[in-house]
Amino acid sequence: MTHHDLTILVIDENAIRSSIIEEGLRQAGHGNVTVIHDVQGVGRIIENLRPDVIVIDLENPNRDMLESMFQLSRSVKRPIAMFVDRSEQGMIEAAVEAGVSAYIVDGLRQERVKPILDMAISRFNAFSKMARELEEARSELENRKIIDRAKGILMKSKGLSEEEAYRLLRKTAMNQNRKIGEIAQSLVMAAGLLEK
Amino acid sequence: MTHHDLTILVIDENAIRSSIIEEGLRQAGHGNVTVIHDVQGVGRIIENLRPDVIVIDLENPNRDMLESMFQLSRSVKRPIAMFVDRSEQGMIEAAVEAGVSAYIVDGLRQERVKPILDMAISRFNAFSKMARELEEARSELENRKIIDRAKGILMKSKGLSEEEAYRLLRKTAMNQNRKIGEIAQSLVMAAGLLEK
Repeated sequence: MTHHDLTILVIDENAIRSSIIEEGLRQAGHGNVTVIHDVQGVGRIIENLRPDVIVIDLENPNRDMLESMFQLSRSVKRPIAMFVDRSEQGMIEAAVEAGVSAYIVDGLRQERVKPILDMAISRFNAFSKMARELEEARSELENRKIIDRAKGILMKSKGLSEEEAYRLLRKTAMNQNRKIGEIAQSLVMAAGLLEK
Repeated sequence: MTHHDLTILVIDENAIRSSIIEEGLRQAGHGNVTVIHDVQGVGRIIENLRPDVIVIDLENPNRDMLESMFQLSRSVKRPIAMFVDRSEQGMIEAAVEAGVSAYIVDGLRQERVKPILDMAISRFNAFSKMARELEEARSELENRKIIDRAKGILMKSKGLSEEEAYRLLRKTAMNQNRKIGEIAQSLVMAAGLLEK
C-alpha cells in the first residue's frame, strides 16, 4: 500500500484547525480522509472505518480529555498523531506510554502534517515489530517451560525417560490435533489439581 | 535526575540556528549545554562528555551527512533529537530505524525545543526498556535451548537420567564458578568438535 491510499481519520473539535489538517493531507495527495468534530462515538466510527492512521487535534485539552484520548490510543492499536497546543508536566511521557506515535506540542502547521503522519506510521511500525518479537520470544519461552514441567511430571509419575515423556506428549498432541504446549498446559494443571 | 540536570550536547553547523536551540534550552532551565559547530571528532567528544541527550540540527542536509548522523545514532545509544528543514523520501523511516528518538522536519522554533527534548527522552526510554526485555527473553530462551542440548549429550554419552545430567552441569558450573549456560555452551561446542 502506498501512503496515498491510506484511510485517515481526523478527530478535531475545532473546524478551523481541522481544515488546516485536511488541507495539509490534500496537498500531500491523501484523498481518503474522514473528519469528525465530536469525539462521542469515536470507538464505533473507528470500528467501521478501520483507518490506517488517526490524527487527533486537541488544541487546548484538559486532563480528562487527554486521558480519554490516551485510552483510545491504547485500545485501537493504530498509528496516532496527536496535536496539542500546550502540554502539562508529565503528559508527554503519558502520551508515549499510551502508544501515541507522534505527539506534537504547539506545532500544527499545514506543511508539517505530512511528515508528521509519515513519522507516526514509521514509529508505529517499528514499535509494533519489536512488540511482536517480544511477544513471540516470551511465548516460546513459556512454551518450553511448561513442556519441561509436563515432561518432569510424566517422568516421575510413570517412570519414563525424558525422551519417552516427550514422545508421549507429542503423540497425545497429534491424536487430539492440539499443540504440544496445550497438552503440557493441561497436564500441569491437572497434576496440580490431583496433588494430595 | 531531574531534566534540569541533563548534560546536553548540541551539534549545529549554523550559529544562528544553534542560538535558537540554546535559547530554548536556557529558557527551559537547562544550564549544562555544550554546543559544537563541527561534526568532525564528534565521537570522541561524546565519549568524554557522556551527554544524556544529543540535539542535532542539520538545516538542509545531503544524504551523506544524514547517513553519517544515523550511523552516529545507532552507535551512541542515547536519546537524539534531530532537526532538519526538509526531508527526502524515505529519510523519516531511515531516522526511525536508526533509533533517532525525535526527527523534526521543518519545526525548529525556540519554544518547541523543550517539549521535543522531553519527547526524545521519553521515547528513548520506552524503546530501550522494550529492547532490553526482548534481549532478556531471547537470551533466556537461548540459555534454555543450550542447556537442553547439553543435557541430551550427557544423557546419551554417559547413560544419565535428565536429572543426573542437569545436576552434573550444575555441579561443574559451581566448581568452575561459571554459569550453567556457559558450561552447556562449552560442552555442546566440544561435542561438535569431537563428533566422528
